[in-house]
Amino acid sequence: MKKISVIKIGGNILDSERDLSAFLDQFASLEGHKVLVHGGGKAATRQAEALGVPVMMVDGRRITDKAMIGIAVQVYAGSINKGLVADLQSRNCNALGMTGADLNMIPAWKRKHPTIDFGYVGDFDTDSINGSLLKEIINLDVVPVFCALTHDGNGNLLNTNADTIASGLAVALSKFYQTSLYFGFEKDGVLSDPSNDDSVIERLDYDLYQNLKENHSIHDGMIPKLDNAFNALKSGVDKIRIGHALKLSDFNGTELYL
Amino acid sequence: MKKISVIKIGGNILDSERDLSAFLDQFASLEGHKVLVHGGGKAATRQAEALGVPVMMVDGRRITDKAMIGIAVQVYAGSINKGLVADLQSRNCNALGMTGADLNMIPAWKRKHPTIDFGYVGDFDTDSINGSLLKEIINLDVVPVFCALTHDGNGNLLNTNADTIASGLAVALSKFYQTSLYFGFEKDGVLSDPSNDDSVIERLDYDLYQNLKENHSIHDGMIPKLDNAFNALKSGVDKIRIGHALKLSDFNGTELYL
Repeated sequence: MKKISVIKIGGNILDSERDLSAFLDQFASLEGHKVLVHGGGKAATRQAEALGVPVMMVDGRRITDKAMIGIAVQVYAGSINKGLVADLQSRNCNALGMTGADLNMIPAWKRKHPTIDFGYVGDFDTDSINGSLLKEIINLDVVPVFCALTHDGNGNLLNTNADTIASGLAVALSKFYQTSLYFGFEKDGVLSDPSNDDSVIERLDYDLYQNLKENHSIHDGMIPKLDNAFNALKSGVDKIRIGHALKLSDFNGTELYL
Repeated sequence: MKKISVIKIGGNILDSERDLSAFLDQFASLEGHKVLVHGGGKAATRQAEALGVPVMMVDGRRITDKAMIGIAVQVYAGSINKGLVADLQSRNCNALGMTGADLNMIPAWKRKHPTIDFGYVGDFDTDSINGSLLKEIINLDVVPVFCALTHDGNGNLLNTNADTIASGLAVALSKFYQTSLYFGFEKDGVLSDPSNDDSVIERLDYDLYQNLKENHSIHDGMIPKLDNAFNALKSGVDKIRIGHALKLSDFNGTELYL
């Protein structure tokens, strides 16, 4: 079975030109098949401010209304995604920028919630991802670059969590490749003590994860990321690591085990 | 040789929701392989106004400065392109939205001019188009949807004429397919009398074109479109027509001959 790397990067790295350039150098020189999934960074918030589009909140939760999904499409699928594609092409990496609407890759639905209408926010079923077509594209030595948008099949693009997309794509690809998934962020890994950057957990198994959740060593933002990641590990992804976005090739960070 | 249709639509149709929907119905139901190339419409101008980005002019020519290419990428590659992709997917047409940077499809360079720096405006050589990779993608029953952006290989996206992109792609694909190219716009074809919409020239050969240019029957905006089209016809495209964007299947409009 051929190998593939699915790399996810978050917003922080996109907001620093120097870090982004260093990351792209590393990503472009990774050997073998690969997929990049990127978050949004602060650019969408800046764009909303510049256009005078207010952030909609309901019950303390952020809502993606029509104006805000319009901005997400401009910024995520336009500026950021195509900027990454052009930058990767300049590094001889044959990138193809995509949303989950392109090639009907990630069919989704508007989030269902008993009391809150989140607007243009999408959830999807990993089994619906069109992995066999993605494999055909990848086997042409193409490097897909995904932004965090899906679609509902009725012409609506939907804002979707980038970690969930990365996990979903890794699971879908694990039918065809030995798949490793890397969540790159601004820390060196999952920390046992969030206030101490040197407290990286090198090996995190599911039981330890449960313990660390119970004693609140693992903080809020990390929980959905790790829940996603453990689900992906259970669903066929071979190797999952969480570490610094600028240490792609070092094989450090936190490795997950069942 | 398999057949393919390359369809170009301009800005007017993108600015009318009803016309666009009617066009997409027709495009989605076209049989066989196909490619869509779209222009920009007024959305980029509206976005520039909303963001307070002034239109730069030098010697009466419009310049694409850094702010303006940013807007072009947001609007053309983001809003318009991904909107079309989602709309086509809702019509069971397996669209893939692309710029000329994706898959390094259209390598270009910043326009060279002895006295004017046009900024982020791209020109390209049709021979450089990566037609064999595009063929592999198309043969997966994928429908590429191109916006009018190329790239310079140094990380810069470049604004490029949509008619030129459509002609270039048609020429590149004519090595692999029997290719027809359709320029859809708001008239029923090339008019011998621009003030009379019923004066459609059904058959326009190169000599007649030269005559009509000389006696000024063919107006300014049509000339680069027709120059492009005749070049494409000379370079291997099988059939070229210019007609109404909402009459795709009627085989009317103006057909070009050498």
